[in-house]
Amino acid sequence: MSDAVEEFNAYRSKMNDKLLSNDNKVIKRIFNLDTNAFAEGALDVKTKELLGLVASAVLRCDDCVKYHLESSHSQGVSKQEVMETLSIATLIGGTIVIPHLRRAYEYWELLEQKEG
Amino acid sequence: MSDAVEEFNAYRSKMNDKLLSNDNKVIKRIFNLDTNAFAEGALDVKTKELLGLVASAVLRCDDCVKYHLESSHSQGVSKQEVMETLSIATLIGGTIVIPHLRRAYEYWELLEQKEG
Amino acid sequence: MSDAVEEFNAYRSKMNDKLLSNDNKVIKRIFNLDTNAFAEGALDVKTKELLGLVASAVLRCDDCVKYHLESSHSQGVSKQEVMETLSIATLIGGTIVIPHLRRAYEYWELLEQKEG
Amino acid sequence: MSDAVEEFNAYRSKMNDKLLSNDNKVIKRIFNLDTNAFAEGALDVKTKELLGLVASAVLRCDDCVKYHLESSHSQGVSKQEVMETLSIATLIGGTIVIPHLRRAYEYWELLEQKEG
Amino acid sequence: MSDAVEEFNAYRSKMNDKLLSNDNKVIKRIFNLDTNAFAEGALDVKTKELLGLVASAVLRCDDCVKYHLESSHSQGVSKQEVMETLSIATLIGGTIVIPHLRRAYEYWELLEQKEG
Amino acid sequence: MSDAVEEFNAYRSKMNDKLLSNDNKVIKRIFNLDTNAFAEGALDVKTKELLGLVASAVLRCDDCVKYHLESSHSQGVSKQEVMETLSIATLIGGTIVIPHLRRAYEYWELLEQKEG
Repeated sequence: MSDAVEEFNAYRSKMNDKLLSNDNKVIKRIFNLDTNAFAEGALDVKTKELLGLVASAVLRCDDCVKYHLESSHSQGVSKQEVMETLSIATLIGGTIVIPHLRRAYEYWELLEQKEG
Repeated sequence: MSDAVEEFNAYRSKMNDKLLSNDNKVIKRIFNLDTNAFAEGALDVKTKELLGLVASAVLRCDDCVKYHLESSHSQGVSKQEVMETLSIATLIGGTIVIPHLRRAYEYWELLEQKEG
Repeated sequence: MSDAVEEFNAYRSKMNDKLLSNDNKVIKRIFNLDTNAFAEGALDVKTKELLGLVASAVLRCDDCVKYHLESSHSQGVSKQEVMETLSIATLIGGTIVIPHLRRAYEYWELLEQKEG
Repeated sequence: MSDAVEEFNAYRSKMNDKLLSNDNKVIKRIFNLDTNAFAEGALDVKTKELLGLVASAVLRCDDCVKYHLESSHSQGVSKQEVMETLSIATLIGGTIVIPHLRRAYEYWELLEQKEG
Repeated sequence: MSDAVEEFNAYRSKMNDKLLSNDNKVIKRIFNLDTNAFAEGALDVKTKELLGLVASAVLRCDDCVKYHLESSHSQGVSKQEVMETLSIATLIGGTIVIPHLRRAYEYWELLEQKEG
Repeated sequence: MSDAVEEFNAYRSKMNDKLLSNDNKVIKRIFNLDTNAFAEGALDVKTKELLGLVASAVLRCDDCVKYHLESSHSQGVSKQEVMETLSIATLIGGTIVIPHLRRAYEYWELLEQKEG
């Protein structure tokens, strides 16, 4: 079942490569900025990943949520920490966040299974 | 064809159960509030379902639209009433609502077929 | 204090007149559609105003909220009905709706004072 | 592989026909307005298609993006022009636009293959 | 100049009192949930305030940003931490966040002056 | 009356200077990207300004609309071209764009008066 994780990452990588092979400087730089913004700074990497997660969730971007769930998972974030982050997203963003919450929960389970 | 309705509801129930079995009070209470907010009050249940439908449509949440279409259907809302509600959503929310309008129309047809 | 109501309406009318005196057919027709969409149909005018109100609130458009509060008020909608409509907006749209809720409440009070 | 293009268009046409066969004037007129708004005027058709594309991208409406990619393609817009338009969308709308950028890029490739 | 802070809080308190004196259970409970969601849990209060800040910023809610800036300030969050949080918001949410970034920066300065 | 234009620009410049004097690389680079994205490329500067305008309008960012109206004005864009761009924004983004349309129209008049 963890194929859903690999499939997501494979499509993401393939299309990112195509986008970046294209000669558009603005897009390239935005991709680079993404790496910069989530690097250790005054705030640690884990906190920044949770910031990315909550922002993705309230903006209801499933792919962005999956991406930040995966980085959070590899940073050792616990399930309870993820749930508290997503509960803040649901409160601030409203019940329209709930369908994304369901899919986020499912993806987190896949990440845990893959690891297990 | 009405399997699409059952599939939607099965996934929704399964994931909601998982979310609620998790010990996050904020999420649990938001789920409870949902029941409260759409209960009979100064406004009747049918009107409230249409309010939920139009809000879901302008926020372009397909799963929320399906959910309120289903409750509206079981409240005896007519197709014409649904269409007027969705036309207000399209006017206020703009043509970006149209793809959701197509999927809403399709789902409503499935609900009518299932009933027939 | 009800001057805030008159000021809002005066600015709105003045700018709408300018927009419509301009020769842009698409904008003119969208303005006309607005009248059509909220006219009596399968749903009555009052219900449609509440649909307009909840949609405006979740999309966090203060001017649209004021406009629909005013039409709702002249349709005889009660304060309790307005509050139930806005509570659904806050639940679906999340706590980011609350600042608009505060301003909506204040505007409704002005409408009631003006009438009193 | 270009079947994805045909499938998208077939579903779109089928559901639009159903929506328009339904007797809702507001929806019909919004569909008509769409034709008007993108017709030659002070701005040429190609520029208007790019305006439609960037607006659809920042509002993160995949189906609307596909639709405007297809019209842009038939208007002879180049890949570089599409990429500049989408880079503006990504800068203004933020990295949450990136998943839509990936899907837009993929659809543009399908349109080019179909033509080739 | 810090009067802008007091004015904001006074209006906010006055209108919240009115909203809560009104007998709408759903609104009351959403207000209560707000307190719950930001309380110490698996994540500490400071992290939660930053989650609230970034979510408010990407959803472009000035009043919500001010509110979380104020709680962050009283939690001892540093200016650099606020700036990193807001830079993530601007990257994820795009340049449309910048006007809110300007107002957030101004409000943070007022909070620092008031304290000084 | 054109003071509103100068006031807007003065506040914008003052706060941008503060934001950039702060040592946050991500924010600095996003500001730089803004210059890059709207520079002459496969698309000319005028077309890019209209893309920026329509994106700002559908995302309902008044300050961004003002900024792009001003650049469009200095690029020699005609009032009719602005109106066609804004009419596309209103159709795609819905009637919630109308309050922003009113303010955009007012700002354009100020720009024309200032020039006159």
